[in-house]
Amino acid sequence: MTLVDRLSRYLPILQWGAKYNGKTFTNDLLVAGIVTVMLIPQSLAYAMLAGLPPEVGLYASMAPLILYAIFGTSRALAVGPVAVASLMTAAAAATVAARGTPEYLGATIALAMISGLLLLAMGLLRLGFLANFLSHPVISGFITASGIQIATSQVAPLLGIDGHGETFVEVATSIVPNLVQANPYTAAIGITSLLFLFWVRSGLKPLLLKVGLRERVADLLAKVGPVVAIAVTTTAVWGFGLSEDGVKIVGTVPKGLPKLAIPPLEFSLWSKLLVPALLISIVGYVESISVALTLAAKRRQRVDPDQELVALGMSNFGSAVSGGFPVTGGFSRSVVNFDAGAETPAAGAFTAIGIAIATLFLTPLLFFLPNATLAATIIVAVLSLVDFAAIKDTWHYSRSDGAAMIATILLTLVEGVEIGLLTGVGLSIFLHLYRTSKPHVAVVGQMPGTMNFRNKDRHAVVTDPEILSLRIDASLYFPNARFIEDFISQAVAAEPKVRHVILECPAVNTIDASALESLEAVNARLKEGGIALHLSEVKGPVMDRLQRSHFIEELTGKIHLTHFDAVSSINDALARRTLESARTHP
Amino acid sequence: MTLVDRLSRYLPILQWGAKYNGKTFTNDLLVAGIVTVMLIPQSLAYAMLAGLPPEVGLYASMAPLILYAIFGTSRALAVGPVAVASLMTAAAAATVAARGTPEYLGATIALAMISGLLLLAMGLLRLGFLANFLSHPVISGFITASGIQIATSQVAPLLGIDGHGETFVEVATSIVPNLVQANPYTAAIGITSLLFLFWVRSGLKPLLLKVGLRERVADLLAKVGPVVAIAVTTTAVWGFGLSEDGVKIVGTVPKGLPKLAIPPLEFSLWSKLLVPALLISIVGYVESISVALTLAAKRRQRVDPDQELVALGMSNFGSAVSGGFPVTGGFSRSVVNFDAGAETPAAGAFTAIGIAIATLFLTPLLFFLPNATLAATIIVAVLSLVDFAAIKDTWHYSRSDGAAMIATILLTLVEGVEIGLLTGVGLSIFLHLYRTSKPHVAVVGQMPGTMNFRNKDRHAVVTDPEILSLRIDASLYFPNARFIEDFISQAVAAEPKVRHVILECPAVNTIDASALESLEAVNARLKEGGIALHLSEVKGPVMDRLQRSHFIEELTGKIHLTHFDAVSSINDALARRTLESARTHP
Repeated sequence: MTLVDRLSRYLPILQWGAKYNGKTFTNDLLVAGIVTVMLIPQSLAYAMLAGLPPEVGLYASMAPLILYAIFGTSRALAVGPVAVASLMTAAAAATVAARGTPEYLGATIALAMISGLLLLAMGLLRLGFLANFLSHPVISGFITASGIQIATSQVAPLLGIDGHGETFVEVATSIVPNLVQANPYTAAIGITSLLFLFWVRSGLKPLLLKVGLRERVADLLAKVGPVVAIAVTTTAVWGFGLSEDGVKIVGTVPKGLPKLAIPPLEFSLWSKLLVPALLISIVGYVESISVALTLAAKRRQRVDPDQELVALGMSNFGSAVSGGFPVTGGFSRSVVNFDAGAETPAAGAFTAIGIAIATLFLTPLLFFLPNATLAATIIVAVLSLVDFAAIKDTWHYSRSDGAAMIATILLTLVEGVEIGLLTGVGLSIFLHLYRTSKPHVAVVGQMPGTMNFRNKDRHAVVTDPEILSLRIDASLYFPNARFIEDFISQAVAAEPKVRHVILECPAVNTIDASALESLEAVNARLKEGGIALHLSEVKGPVMDRLQRSHFIEELTGKIHLTHFDAVSSINDALARRTLESARTHP
Repeated sequence: MTLVDRLSRYLPILQWGAKYNGKTFTNDLLVAGIVTVMLIPQSLAYAMLAGLPPEVGLYASMAPLILYAIFGTSRALAVGPVAVASLMTAAAAATVAARGTPEYLGATIALAMISGLLLLAMGLLRLGFLANFLSHPVISGFITASGIQIATSQVAPLLGIDGHGETFVEVATSIVPNLVQANPYTAAIGITSLLFLFWVRSGLKPLLLKVGLRERVADLLAKVGPVVAIAVTTTAVWGFGLSEDGVKIVGTVPKGLPKLAIPPLEFSLWSKLLVPALLISIVGYVESISVALTLAAKRRQRVDPDQELVALGMSNFGSAVSGGFPVTGGFSRSVVNFDAGAETPAAGAFTAIGIAIATLFLTPLLFFLPNATLAATIIVAVLSLVDFAAIKDTWHYSRSDGAAMIATILLTLVEGVEIGLLTGVGLSIFLHLYRTSKPHVAVVGQMPGTMNFRNKDRHAVVTDPEILSLRIDASLYFPNARFIEDFISQAVAAEPKVRHVILECPAVNTIDASALESLEAVNARLKEGGIALHLSEVKGPVMDRLQRSHFIEELTGKIHLTHFDAVSSINDALARRTLESARTHP
């Protein structure tokens, strides 16, 4: 690999940048305009969800986009604050400081910093497989539970009532008694916005198609619904002076670009935030890489999962040093970016410039923006994350996956995001080990007139009382090693005539040290009972490894290429012995 | 199942008891005599190791043996205090109380009680697979480290110096500076006993065989070496009045049978001891079941692993209520029991009676028994647990198993038994998931002139630029689901002509919900790129499960019985299409 190859692996901008031209530029600029309009309300809303001032949401939508444009491999991914990561940020920061304090803001900056460093380290050390520990049912259950919890938490700002708490249960129980105290103006704005946004999602697009708009344009127009809701409600609040009737508004958003921020460098703070930051990183990465792979596949483009870790790491680092909070590649805005026709990551960089311009000049327009409208945009966005059908499908497909999913949902709602997610991960690993701990082992016999061997219980096969043939349908490793040991012990104890045991191993992809010990123990125990142990159809890589152990020397029987070879050579030996014994004792 | 069958499943004594006769009785009685002689010094020594008064060791060798005789399924297993469990008991009890206090004794009784209840629950709920989580390398490393730590901890009583600490490092650093203060009489007794016991292990048996004794008799005589050492050194201390020269002795051992004991029933104590008790239970069970299976195999007897959990649970419960500490089936005493010819578990019950007689009448004889001799018997016993060769063999066989083993040893020595063991378990699960997260996937092509398909990189095969055939050599589940997704994405991006992807699945034993999601995503993404996804050689159980999902309906391609079928039916379709297109555009 040349230096340029190496550099362009870590700096994908060198690849697409070299071919950049005027046409691509114009196109990317147009896309950036659309995405900017969509991203401003999202940024404000997710900052509110994370318990942060609105400008922090804007800050998190500048530097990260530029850094992703330099380091990212997806052409269409749009990074920035997203709902689930914002919820997780709020939950983590609340464990170390109270909302609204400088310490709380410091904690969210520290979370972005730690998250960035962790992602960067995972990318450089190629540890992307860590994300695999989050199984689909667990992440899907977690996102459903997060969606429910986020929607519930936004009921308070939607109706202008008090409500607080860190888990769904806490929030729900704190809201219900206050429902009667709803501020009528706030509730009117919130509920109208909510209904409007739902209608935009479901009713507007068909209408636009009916009046003759093209599908893609109709889609894009439907996506700017939140901007319309914001413009109308902001004007209403300003025009009717509703903020004096108790409608909570965004208020002053400081003008100007973010300043360099340094998170509090306290060891005790960082160590408290390490696990939450790891979870935010992995959940964010899983969401981001799924979006990136899906969009790349549509145009047969490549995405490098390890480099994506680096790019997200840099984005979060960038967010932290510019006073933002954890970011990741979001689904809806990436789709908009893609549908609008983003050709290169430069579109993201231009979006960042768009947000910067808005931050410099347009923040006074946001003064009268009611929180209730932002709450409505969040509720509509996150309810699409809630997927109850997936619970049913998963349970139907696999009980243990379904159980892991339901446990994740319940624990996330009752105990919070961290415990919910960690329990889900632990449970899915445990259930996996449990499932593989009792693999399928079939007693096989010969299909009459063929060289094939099949399960004795399913086929009319021929077996020899002196030979026990067992086909093992699993890799042999520690969770099932002892099971195989027991299985053979019991099978042999039940068949007193057996002199040979043959293990047929075509489905054995690995034998780890535990399974090797077990096979050695089986071999030694069978030897005590005067029984030989044979193997057949051992795969190449498994055989290579067995040759590095003492097992093959100690094996009382042989390793046969095919199961038929095994049975016939044993039968020959048995026949010879019978013959010899007949000769010597005529 | 009749009531008697059910009962005899949980009370194996009903099976062998019915056939019990005078001959078996005489035989079992003789065996019990031999084991009793061996068990007395062991019980005293392991009580000392656990930091308990000597009589506690004797108590732990009565009730448990009788209960095992009733509930156990092994004919030869001898339960009682063992070295590693005693070390773990000491480590756990030291976290809640100081040695020598009534609270410390209470904690050890509570450990036996919790351990008994956990084992009983595991047995009744058939949770024996939990023991599988301890991989062979981890348990082997743990036992080696425990052996080193126990031997080190006995250097202080062996030489009559001070030494304390909970981990190997603490003990070793506390002993070294005190070595110069060794009590000469104690050290003389200790070192002489040690040399004598080593000679008995290695030199006595060949000598006995030379003078014409039979192998089994020679073996048994070699096993009573500790009794000789105890008799001689006790007599010496008494005769020369060495206890007045600073030689520490056992002193008064209360006469009489154990009284009913109830552990302190404090929730906070039990919750602190829960994890250590679980570890003691599982380590003890693994040791015990290995010994039981090995001995049963020699006579083709059966052992029921789930009932063994019940039996060990009852034994520990019995130990607790009679004032003892955690017990399990020990290797050396079970072998003695077996070699002496134990025919039924009644031998164990008679041993308990032997110990009871000794406790009633012989304790005055133990007054002058020097601690140094007990230390010597412990050192000789545990050094046989240390197995450095296993480290080399395991590392040579598998780097990841070797790494888990070495980590377990180092952490046990430095951080203590609990952290060492838990880290080992965590690490081996992690490494297992890591190893399976990047399975082998081969691009396959047709072997010319055959219906077989082989790895493109290893054989001269024929491939079609429009068809990508991938053989997956692993079950598909969450740790590798995303890898397969990425692999297919990259492979397709690299082959722009591909119109069909076929996954050959003969080695796929399961597809979990995560892998199903990944396959669905792959299918949807390939569809976007105009590529069809096919499967071939899907196993029956995997197919059954897939039929419960929407995957088969959504699949853009088909599921083919063999890979050859898949390729030929696609080729037919391709040929037809080319032909039709030639017809329509002539």
